[in-house]
Amino acid sequence: MVRVGVNGYGTIGKRVADAILKQDDMELVGVVKTRPDYSALQAVRRGIRIYAPDAESARKLEAGGVPVAGTIHDLLGQVDVIIDATPGGVGAKYKPLYEEAGVKAIFQGGEEADVAEASFSSLCNYEQAVGKRSLRVVSCNTTGLLRLICTLNKAIGVKSVRATLVRRAADPRETKRGPVNSINISPVKLPSHHGEDVKTVLPGLDIVTAAVVVPTTLMHVHLVNLRLARPASLDEVLEALQSTRRIMLVDSGRTGIKSTAELIEAARDAGRPRNDIPELAVFKDSITINGDELILFQAVHQESIVIPENIDAVRAIMNMASREESIRKTDESLGLGTPLW
Amino acid sequence: MVRVGVNGYGTIGKRVADAILKQDDMELVGVVKTRPDYSALQAVRRGIRIYAPDAESARKLEAGGVPVAGTIHDLLGQVDVIIDATPGGVGAKYKPLYEEAGVKAIFQGGEEADVAEASFSSLCNYEQAVGKRSLRVVSCNTTGLLRLICTLNKAIGVKSVRATLVRRAADPRETKRGPVNSINISPVKLPSHHGEDVKTVLPGLDIVTAAVVVPTTLMHVHLVNLRLARPASLDEVLEALQSTRRIMLVDSGRTGIKSTAELIEAARDAGRPRNDIPELAVFKDSITINGDELILFQAVHQESIVIPENIDAVRAIMNMASREESIRKTDESLGLGTPLW
Repeated sequence: MVRVGVNGYGTIGKRVADAILKQDDMELVGVVKTRPDYSALQAVRRGIRIYAPDAESARKLEAGGVPVAGTIHDLLGQVDVIIDATPGGVGAKYKPLYEEAGVKAIFQGGEEADVAEASFSSLCNYEQAVGKRSLRVVSCNTTGLLRLICTLNKAIGVKSVRATLVRRAADPRETKRGPVNSINISPVKLPSHHGEDVKTVLPGLDIVTAAVVVPTTLMHVHLVNLRLARPASLDEVLEALQSTRRIMLVDSGRTGIKSTAELIEAARDAGRPRNDIPELAVFKDSITINGDELILFQAVHQESIVIPENIDAVRAIMNMASREESIRKTDESLGLGTPLW
Repeated sequence: MVRVGVNGYGTIGKRVADAILKQDDMELVGVVKTRPDYSALQAVRRGIRIYAPDAESARKLEAGGVPVAGTIHDLLGQVDVIIDATPGGVGAKYKPLYEEAGVKAIFQGGEEADVAEASFSSLCNYEQAVGKRSLRVVSCNTTGLLRLICTLNKAIGVKSVRATLVRRAADPRETKRGPVNSINISPVKLPSHHGEDVKTVLPGLDIVTAAVVVPTTLMHVHLVNLRLARPASLDEVLEALQSTRRIMLVDSGRTGIKSTAELIEAARDAGRPRNDIPELAVFKDSITINGDELILFQAVHQESIVIPENIDAVRAIMNMASREESIRKTDESLGLGTPLW
């Protein structure tokens, strides 16, 4: 039983914690939380031990009715691996603390790539991550792109990728981020960092991405244009995409779903926890093939898509299971592939 | 066991159907659905029988992979009461069909008040509804106002109400309704219909409401200004509000929740089905008392707040239980009052 801690209890941290509780080969020792808000109170109610980043936060948590099990130092003394789910850039500041404690560390995609020994995506480079001291699970958009690329690469081969990312502006819980009425060209100078981030896992891939930010909180949408290694049929592409539970095909003709709003509504109706969709959602009817060119729309649920990869990263870094075994355990425990309609 | 049918399977209809399935004194015979979309496919997966409004819809449903148990006429032949959850104004067109079939009918607040023998709100006029042939459960905003008013009226007395309603523009699943960047004065000519609708349940109450529509899908927010029958203390008001599970006090100081976004996030985290909040959410820290004047903010989850009232309406119209018994059964079966933090 590998002992895991989670530093940070926001959008990603709380989902990672829930996912660890569902694994039969991991123990959640506790989470680090800074403020005594509704999510801290919920964690307490659910029996999750809360640790404080420092004495000042510990005082605030206790004053807010949140019992504190200790500081982050106490947590690090009891775990084999820490999953850093602090805000982007903050993980790098914690890195020396993790190293000092002799604890393996898994960072998120909000950190620079050099924060860890390797960037990680389960379907692409699980084996290269085995036994490393630190890993970085790439961000939500990069995870979505890599799931598609590595799945097609394995089955058919991918020569180049051009993608336009239409990004959600904020997570549903974030009340201070904008824009509320603008399309932000982000960044204006191409390429966007997403394609570069893909290369931290697939060096040498010919990929260029561009991104805009639009006023929505639900999901990102990508228009992906791939050049395959050879001409392929629709059936070959569909067969490849259906070979993994990490990808979900959305049949708009059958379901009527043509928007992120309807996808999330289907997840709500299906009883998915928090209406999460950890699968990459590929719009089946958008798949267009011209010889070796493949074009499609896909949607990325930014709050949950990296959760399976974080769980696999624990197994890879601790050398607990083969890639196939880890992915199978993760997918089953998290219910990936359970039908939304 | 009272046999219930639901005509319409949208925002309200699917929730009413789920709620009926949780009652030990009701049987869901089936629902009427027009199109074979994701929610119809989900209903099939869950074993809910689907009826079609007409032969043309039946053909479309069957062609879309949705088995059809019969037409609405077949459904009406098997039920004691039909809950009409069709779009606003459509219920009136179905009324003759319900009467012809000799089936009691419960309409929603989107219909004119004269569609039914009485308008209904559990905490206000349950007893008057007992044994009627038709009822109209008032709309979400009216239900929210009535829960507050009748609770305070019972404990302290209410002389007059002035309320400003900040309304959500569309439900989360609705991709065609606006506005996306405007505050609509709706209507400009005062009062708004909400206060008038309150009077269909509480005739003679001095109430004036005004409403604007803003670009959000999560919840409505009301600023309510009440004149009490006499000066009251904060403790008296809090005690009254805590006397029913239909009202939830939101402690912003303790939870950090100051927005509808955070309220819904708390419901997601707490594992509420579809992140629903059927309780009226009163912001505790907003409660301000000046002698006999009471001012507060409250939030109304438009998708789910009327569901408990629909279930009570079945028991009232069928004379199945006393008001207290029905409310207790409904609240327990639907989990009202289960903590969000």
